[in-house]
Amino acid sequence: MKTMKKKIVLAYSGGLDTSVILKWLVEKGYEVIAYCADIGQQDDFEKIKAKALKTGASKVYVSDLKKEFVTDYIFPAIKANAIYEGRYMMGTSLARPLTAKKQIEIAKQEGAEYVSHGATGKGNDQVRFELSYYALNPSIKVFAPWKDPEFLSEFSGRTDMLNYAEKHGIDVVQSAEKPYSEDENLMHISHEAGILEDPSLPYKKDILKHCVHLDKTPDKEENIEVHFKDGIPVKVINKEDGTQHTESLALFMYLNKIGAKHGVGVVDMVENRFVGIKSRGIYETPGATILRAAHMDIEGVAMDREVMKIRDMLIPKFAEYVYNGFWFAPEMDFLLAAIDKSQEMIDGVVHLSLYKGNVIINSRESPSSLYDQDLSSMDIEGGFDQTDSKGFIKINAIRLKAHKAILNKFNKDYFD
Amino acid sequence: MKTMKKKIVLAYSGGLDTSVILKWLVEKGYEVIAYCADIGQQDDFEKIKAKALKTGASKVYVSDLKKEFVTDYIFPAIKANAIYEGRYMMGTSLARPLTAKKQIEIAKQEGAEYVSHGATGKGNDQVRFELSYYALNPSIKVFAPWKDPEFLSEFSGRTDMLNYAEKHGIDVVQSAEKPYSEDENLMHISHEAGILEDPSLPYKKDILKHCVHLDKTPDKEENIEVHFKDGIPVKVINKEDGTQHTESLALFMYLNKIGAKHGVGVVDMVENRFVGIKSRGIYETPGATILRAAHMDIEGVAMDREVMKIRDMLIPKFAEYVYNGFWFAPEMDFLLAAIDKSQEMIDGVVHLSLYKGNVIINSRESPSSLYDQDLSSMDIEGGFDQTDSKGFIKINAIRLKAHKAILNKFNKDYFD
Amino acid sequence: MKTMKKKIVLAYSGGLDTSVILKWLVEKGYEVIAYCADIGQQDDFEKIKAKALKTGASKVYVSDLKKEFVTDYIFPAIKANAIYEGRYMMGTSLARPLTAKKQIEIAKQEGAEYVSHGATGKGNDQVRFELSYYALNPSIKVFAPWKDPEFLSEFSGRTDMLNYAEKHGIDVVQSAEKPYSEDENLMHISHEAGILEDPSLPYKKDILKHCVHLDKTPDKEENIEVHFKDGIPVKVINKEDGTQHTESLALFMYLNKIGAKHGVGVVDMVENRFVGIKSRGIYETPGATILRAAHMDIEGVAMDREVMKIRDMLIPKFAEYVYNGFWFAPEMDFLLAAIDKSQEMIDGVVHLSLYKGNVIINSRESPSSLYDQDLSSMDIEGGFDQTDSKGFIKINAIRLKAHKAILNKFNKDYFD
Amino acid sequence: MKTMKKKIVLAYSGGLDTSVILKWLVEKGYEVIAYCADIGQQDDFEKIKAKALKTGASKVYVSDLKKEFVTDYIFPAIKANAIYEGRYMMGTSLARPLTAKKQIEIAKQEGAEYVSHGATGKGNDQVRFELSYYALNPSIKVFAPWKDPEFLSEFSGRTDMLNYAEKHGIDVVQSAEKPYSEDENLMHISHEAGILEDPSLPYKKDILKHCVHLDKTPDKEENIEVHFKDGIPVKVINKEDGTQHTESLALFMYLNKIGAKHGVGVVDMVENRFVGIKSRGIYETPGATILRAAHMDIEGVAMDREVMKIRDMLIPKFAEYVYNGFWFAPEMDFLLAAIDKSQEMIDGVVHLSLYKGNVIINSRESPSSLYDQDLSSMDIEGGFDQTDSKGFIKINAIRLKAHKAILNKFNKDYFD
Repeated sequence: MKTMKKKIVLAYSGGLDTSVILKWLVEKGYEVIAYCADIGQQDDFEKIKAKALKTGASKVYVSDLKKEFVTDYIFPAIKANAIYEGRYMMGTSLARPLTAKKQIEIAKQEGAEYVSHGATGKGNDQVRFELSYYALNPSIKVFAPWKDPEFLSEFSGRTDMLNYAEKHGIDVVQSAEKPYSEDENLMHISHEAGILEDPSLPYKKDILKHCVHLDKTPDKEENIEVHFKDGIPVKVINKEDGTQHTESLALFMYLNKIGAKHGVGVVDMVENRFVGIKSRGIYETPGATILRAAHMDIEGVAMDREVMKIRDMLIPKFAEYVYNGFWFAPEMDFLLAAIDKSQEMIDGVVHLSLYKGNVIINSRESPSSLYDQDLSSMDIEGGFDQTDSKGFIKINAIRLKAHKAILNKFNKDYFD
Repeated sequence: MKTMKKKIVLAYSGGLDTSVILKWLVEKGYEVIAYCADIGQQDDFEKIKAKALKTGASKVYVSDLKKEFVTDYIFPAIKANAIYEGRYMMGTSLARPLTAKKQIEIAKQEGAEYVSHGATGKGNDQVRFELSYYALNPSIKVFAPWKDPEFLSEFSGRTDMLNYAEKHGIDVVQSAEKPYSEDENLMHISHEAGILEDPSLPYKKDILKHCVHLDKTPDKEENIEVHFKDGIPVKVINKEDGTQHTESLALFMYLNKIGAKHGVGVVDMVENRFVGIKSRGIYETPGATILRAAHMDIEGVAMDREVMKIRDMLIPKFAEYVYNGFWFAPEMDFLLAAIDKSQEMIDGVVHLSLYKGNVIINSRESPSSLYDQDLSSMDIEGGFDQTDSKGFIKINAIRLKAHKAILNKFNKDYFD
Repeated sequence: MKTMKKKIVLAYSGGLDTSVILKWLVEKGYEVIAYCADIGQQDDFEKIKAKALKTGASKVYVSDLKKEFVTDYIFPAIKANAIYEGRYMMGTSLARPLTAKKQIEIAKQEGAEYVSHGATGKGNDQVRFELSYYALNPSIKVFAPWKDPEFLSEFSGRTDMLNYAEKHGIDVVQSAEKPYSEDENLMHISHEAGILEDPSLPYKKDILKHCVHLDKTPDKEENIEVHFKDGIPVKVINKEDGTQHTESLALFMYLNKIGAKHGVGVVDMVENRFVGIKSRGIYETPGATILRAAHMDIEGVAMDREVMKIRDMLIPKFAEYVYNGFWFAPEMDFLLAAIDKSQEMIDGVVHLSLYKGNVIINSRESPSSLYDQDLSSMDIEGGFDQTDSKGFIKINAIRLKAHKAILNKFNKDYFD
Repeated sequence: MKTMKKKIVLAYSGGLDTSVILKWLVEKGYEVIAYCADIGQQDDFEKIKAKALKTGASKVYVSDLKKEFVTDYIFPAIKANAIYEGRYMMGTSLARPLTAKKQIEIAKQEGAEYVSHGATGKGNDQVRFELSYYALNPSIKVFAPWKDPEFLSEFSGRTDMLNYAEKHGIDVVQSAEKPYSEDENLMHISHEAGILEDPSLPYKKDILKHCVHLDKTPDKEENIEVHFKDGIPVKVINKEDGTQHTESLALFMYLNKIGAKHGVGVVDMVENRFVGIKSRGIYETPGATILRAAHMDIEGVAMDREVMKIRDMLIPKFAEYVYNGFWFAPEMDFLLAAIDKSQEMIDGVVHLSLYKGNVIINSRESPSSLYDQDLSSMDIEGGFDQTDSKGFIKINAIRLKAHKAILNKFNKDYFD
């Protein structure tokens, strides 16, 4: 009687690594289902599909996740003004849980016990993939070749992989390999590793793929409007040519396009990985950078002060969860409940210009503005009486006076 | 027997408001000591001094606080990456406590029971002045004319003040009054109120006073180096022309100059005042904007991850204290102790370019880099073993698996 | 033509202060509607009603708010494990917004422009009342006699009030006035001011009104069960005698009774008022103290670790909002959204004993336990492999090793 | 030529596990240096020493760490009011880094490359030991038998260890083994695992080892004073018999004794381990429980309100670091800097009674009280003017009014 092969769903990109992994898994006796997540990277999915099958996959899934990526991952991050270590907008961090989620769904559908991915053992992505897998299906088995001793002993470097590919007839893209690695999706492209590892060396201009380098961007600013409803972008209008988008994916792609044209959203930074090491990355995130700036501005008029203050204290935590791979996690549920609450009535339109890498906020209007005409009528009801400030200050000063009296008593002073 | 006049130290700017206040106080029987804080505003202090005396001051102090402003107020804020509501660098908020501190010293020296200022009753500055006064001298008496019923009944608008000035021979600057108000110092200039109040109207380019508008800035980037020691800027080098500064005030003024030339640090925002209302401000903060970007970048290589994470959660709180006027306050002592600790060994140099409003980080080097050659030698001592990540992830997944099992048991799911 | 009198709704307790205020307001020409909130204080509401009418009220409302107090104020606080400055359970703070809410409703119903209360100008309650008034009806006018110069000039102390009462035929309760003030409701009774002001003097045993003093409590422990559903107490069983309650008000009153019998929930502390001064209070909070202990314990088994950690950081903030009177406030909405989310599946039963002031947790069971039989079956799916800990620790150590290497390089060490 | 044996320093308790490990390491060819940390557990160190030598240790160190434990670990935790998940005072968590620190010092002195400990792979202690090792000496090699495949394959349970012990002549203590495990030191004793694992079963009274069970404690309260200087306990006086202690170790041991006598500090809880699982523990922590209560009380009078609020938000984080083993870590340096600052002038005496498990705070006095006679003289300088509260409240209400106006406009309300 024939033994049932073990089924494994492999997150497959069509590149050298995952092609080698695919073949290797087949050789190890797995039935490999290749799964290719279309999250907006510029790829020829038909070619990838064909390559997977040729390399030994029993089946290939290509899942278009672009719209879901925008509405359920990117926009929630925008609502939170999420940013990691003050600068990174987490284009990769936000995509991984979605890719993993679909992969787990396919595994279920196919009755596969295993899932696999090609992320290395030193990076964040392995963590994001695997935590999402386990969080969505606690019984799932994960085969991570870059942490598998057998696989590691067979492939100690790129040369081993090229040799293996050649031996097994796997096409290797002829174009010269880039001397660093990239991760691309709808939200951003990241560049890291290889020649970029040394943080004391500036990156070469030509690595930019999405964004035009600032010395080639237009000399004229372009004016756009971004409209929000409950903290979510619902309309974008280009005031130069009247272009207008309301559908979330189209809107976001348009912002990417126009942001990239003006060189918006390029960041070069050293960041802290969850696995305890620092790494240097160059990121291009045009559309989301525009949205974050616009969102912060509309919050300026429509969000209550104390809500903003407490929310802002939580954003480093929110970003930490996302970055570290805890998207499907109870702590994320917890924070999102509060953030969603804070976004009710964050409505309005922000007028901004794009110019030479800048997102220039010009003005804003909001029907829920806490700073508008209707509120001026508050004046009628007593409104702002300047003499009230006297008591306000005196009461606020009381504990400071007491503290100073004690400092004096102990012959101390502030900042001793 | 002649009664002793009550002495009052008035923060005096030479403008219409404080000149009227000075005269009014004299008429009310105070001996007025005019005090003019030079915190870097572009003023003719000799003229101001003469005007004060002419208007009735018994004495005038002009105190040069520029250096102290840089070292004891601006640099500590840079060390904290302080920013209010995500965008405002608090140029005014940081200056007020220093101005108040010197004023209290003068009051002590002069044996004055009273201090006074010209800030209105609807703004933040009255709070910052007065909280600082009380925090430094709990017995001080504050006379704030814009919260005094008698003064308010006499002066209901600008016209009343102009009439009063004319009547009392107070020179009114002939140049057309700006239809909005400004506050200028070494760190920034702010523009607000008047025609700028409506947040739905863009400001006119010509209001910019420090920064060149982006359409007039140079077409060529300018490369500079910023060196840090313990989180403090200690040297700036312009790599184009070799200009170099190491003295803190000169260094900061140079960054202002070169930043302004490239239009760096202009912000238009609606913010939340401590007195509960929102206001719209336009800020120009060239030098500090460069420093903050550079400082965040050097922290990227030299600061521990967990320190950064917990510190970042505290920054909104730090900014709130500064903005609201609690500089001389025990809570500020508390936070500064931690921040100072975090800045030990935040050393190194950041290479950056200024171009069309952008502060472009190019590279960085640090002797205390947690990402350097010496640490690579960590590899020798075991270093990073990719298979360790397996256990790391599996342990991190345990509670997620447990949570999902419970979600399943209760027929629930994430984000329900 | 007759002028319409100004209507005012006065929060009326029947005591000396609010009776004097009532009469005084009538004399000033107001139509006074007396409003008495029954939030569980031990009062004879018929007598109070009669007294109000006799004193000049045009109408009296007695509103039974007990049930709403338990379900909408006390239980949400229990869900948050709310505690102010580590010790005060906020029995008064939680009651004030409810009292204010009903008062505003009555004002609306009666077409009254004004509301009034008898809280002094140095305390927290004035703030809680008035912030709630304004938050619920921005147009409401507040008349607070203890901050009104005319009223204050007329009544400089208790003697003035007694004289006024006598003159106007207001009954003064004959029993000797207590030399301190009390505030009583369903959740607690507080004792403060007067002879209790000096924090260096212990309070006398006989001030306790709800709780039996520990030297008189039973020598035998009493065993009870508290059942929770979604973080809310839904059943209490006394295992000694089988008493059982499931209705929220009855359940809470029963816990008060049995807790008081065992002297549970007495606190003597110095706390910080919102108005900047410290005050000393003695609190008796029997039922809620039992519930908080039980709730924390059931969370121990049923709440995720990271949710608990981030929630715990927010509790001081939650308590600050409640204590300071910001119940009807957007920041409370924000926090409650997260807290409510965190309480889904906080289900189970806690077995505890009451004995001599102690709430002794004995055991607990939960259907949503993250520590139960079903999860042990996680072992089958890989579960906990001790060797995983090796990688977990090594990865966690990486940044510590890097930090130490830098410390060494700089000849520094921890805690220098 | 003779090969140099590999030296290893083993944290040795004299119990079955570490004796087996010692012998096993010797058999594997290590030179084993036994190290026994005296952190206050009730042990016969001479016997342990002899046993180590007999079992094959080349050398034995017994280090008396008691005083250092009190001054450098317990007292800093008291200064922070540290508590894990609201209830656990971290007696074990605080001891581990100290034990590890001394072990690393011995390793250095002995030129040993390796350190070892007997903690299991499922617990927190392995993490605390090893993170401390690595943090103090990044080059150290750790041999953790309970995570070593070879060791694990040889010892799958207690029987294997007993057999091995018998075979190698290792004395096994004759007294019946407890059906759960204990960890004892100067600060506490913990009981967990084994029959205590089921959180739905109450523990048996007789497991208590330090604290008298409440039904056997004295029927009379005992009055003591605890004096603090800069947040540190500096004197304890028993007011019943005049006993007095000022030396830190003696003081702490006395509080343990007297607290234990009154049954103070027993906790039964389910907590979250760093390795992702929940565990149930019974803790007895008499002395530190008294100190924490007293310390919180003296802070009540002597600590500024805003410092307390921000500090309290950080305590869950502080406790998390300690519990998870990050004592020697930059984030701990960061927090301690702030906490130390907050403790300057936390001086005074707290009068309390111990009775039937309760620490009853009676009164307190402080030379740095922010609530004392000298401050009442603040009244002379203007002090508290009740009418100031009017402005204070009105200003605080402004944003609430604005928020409510917007809620109304959108037909929404609080808590929708």
